[in-house]
Amino acid sequence: MMACGVGVCDSKNSTDEEHFSFSKHPNLEDIRKLQAEFSQERNWDQYHQPRNLLLALMGEVGEVSELFQWRGEVPDGLPGWSEKDREHLAHELSDVLIYLVRLAEKCRVDLPAATKEKIALNKQKYPANKVWGSNKKYTEYTEDKM
Amino acid sequence: MMACGVGVCDSKNSTDEEHFSFSKHPNLEDIRKLQAEFSQERNWDQYHQPRNLLLALMGEVGEVSELFQWRGEVPDGLPGWSEKDREHLAHELSDVLIYLVRLAEKCRVDLPAATKEKIALNKQKYPANKVWGSNKKYTEYTEDKM
Amino acid sequence: MMACGVGVCDSKNSTDEEHFSFSKHPNLEDIRKLQAEFSQERNWDQYHQPRNLLLALMGEVGEVSELFQWRGEVPDGLPGWSEKDREHLAHELSDVLIYLVRLAEKCRVDLPAATKEKIALNKQKYPANKVWGSNKKYTEYTEDKM
Amino acid sequence: MMACGVGVCDSKNSTDEEHFSFSKHPNLEDIRKLQAEFSQERNWDQYHQPRNLLLALMGEVGEVSELFQWRGEVPDGLPGWSEKDREHLAHELSDVLIYLVRLAEKCRVDLPAATKEKIALNKQKYPANKVWGSNKKYTEYTEDKM
Repeated sequence: MMACGVGVCDSKNSTDEEHFSFSKHPNLEDIRKLQAEFSQERNWDQYHQPRNLLLALMGEVGEVSELFQWRGEVPDGLPGWSEKDREHLAHELSDVLIYLVRLAEKCRVDLPAATKEKIALNKQKYPANKVWGSNKKYTEYTEDKM
Repeated sequence: MMACGVGVCDSKNSTDEEHFSFSKHPNLEDIRKLQAEFSQERNWDQYHQPRNLLLALMGEVGEVSELFQWRGEVPDGLPGWSEKDREHLAHELSDVLIYLVRLAEKCRVDLPAATKEKIALNKQKYPANKVWGSNKKYTEYTEDKM
Repeated sequence: MMACGVGVCDSKNSTDEEHFSFSKHPNLEDIRKLQAEFSQERNWDQYHQPRNLLLALMGEVGEVSELFQWRGEVPDGLPGWSEKDREHLAHELSDVLIYLVRLAEKCRVDLPAATKEKIALNKQKYPANKVWGSNKKYTEYTEDKM
Repeated sequence: MMACGVGVCDSKNSTDEEHFSFSKHPNLEDIRKLQAEFSQERNWDQYHQPRNLLLALMGEVGEVSELFQWRGEVPDGLPGWSEKDREHLAHELSDVLIYLVRLAEKCRVDLPAATKEKIALNKQKYPANKVWGSNKKYTEYTEDKM
């Protein structure tokens, strides 16, 4: 299956988890550059201090929460969601990413490199044979803050 | 300047915003794949429903907030932060990204494509000549939820 | 049923929703005063600017989220939760309240009066006969941000 | 100074921190009851499971964040904020409280009693003579999650 061009997959693919994948572009550095240009063209860098961006990020996480808040449990692939709601969600998740990238930039954190490192650390911290499939163990382990 | 290999830039580069950039790898699809494998190897996919992941994301945003909470205003580049705090921040921002990627995957949102589209929409919504450098205009515009 | 003295109700009462109630004391003004004294005795007021407190609040909401994150749907009364988890939750919800009260104080918002007013406004905004029991109407209405 | 009747203090009082206080009513039990009635009259209890309420709470915290996001440091009393912004903030903080109270109720947590207990625990955990006025000590202490 091809990744969905407009950022949201149509409903006939929504249960096809096996073959779902993201587009290869833009990568995180492309997004950083696009958003840096966007801000510079508007003279908005003056507002993009780390704590301002963190509060903006929280605002966007709040928007995502509002999309999930009254639904009870939501299964993979969001069965029953309208195209409008899916598109809305795609936009809000994008806003979270945009502010996260910008926050990392302003903090001089190389986000892709840091993430690669963090996943490697998690592999060591949660050895597959120790934590495999156990809710109890999982809970205990994650209480150490994954 | 090269992007910093371990995910955190050393302090002598922290004010060198001009030349800061992210590593090109891993891209978002690489991260999605790495984390999907990580979960599968531990039989943890059973816990990765969208709302579980959203709550986990909120938990990680909370961890980032704790790093910024008692500091007052924090300038670009985090001058005066210890290496330990910088590394801690890099890990927490990575955790936010990891759960964001996983949430997008479980919702079948092609996050890179959606983000590209969202930035293009923002360009139309906030024309540079209309919003340039004005706090007032900026505020009014963003109240429509960028 | 009496409200539970130590802040958490024991499990045999957990489904007894009909008769659950809060203690009458402390009221919000008592809590404001207790926490103001606590901060003053430690010379911590210097750290309690509004945005510091908002980030601290977010940190505590993140702690609450971590308690709910891997559980799937959680019914009223938290059946199956250990006493330890219930107590942990009671403490985290308290932390959210403490920072909310402190934030309101530092913003000179009379929180009890404002809340009374807000509930009155909500009654006007969502007339019972118009929104009664309809998920669809409920969703549409709350998209206006209750 | 009297607490401000409409939930927001007028600007001439905003620096008068010494004498600011909350109204004594409604207390938390009053608010719980008011909101329980509000929900029952609309047949909305069916949507008020704990995780739904937690996501709604997060949405409201996001709304508060949006009011603070582009302002840089904000001093006590919010000097320079318009009456409209102050009222908006009072309403959003109220929404946070409303959902927090409802969440506590659905989890059978006696929120006022739990908060009283938590403040007492904090007094033991952070002895005034040990943590007085030291940023460094404060930070170290709070990293244990106040």
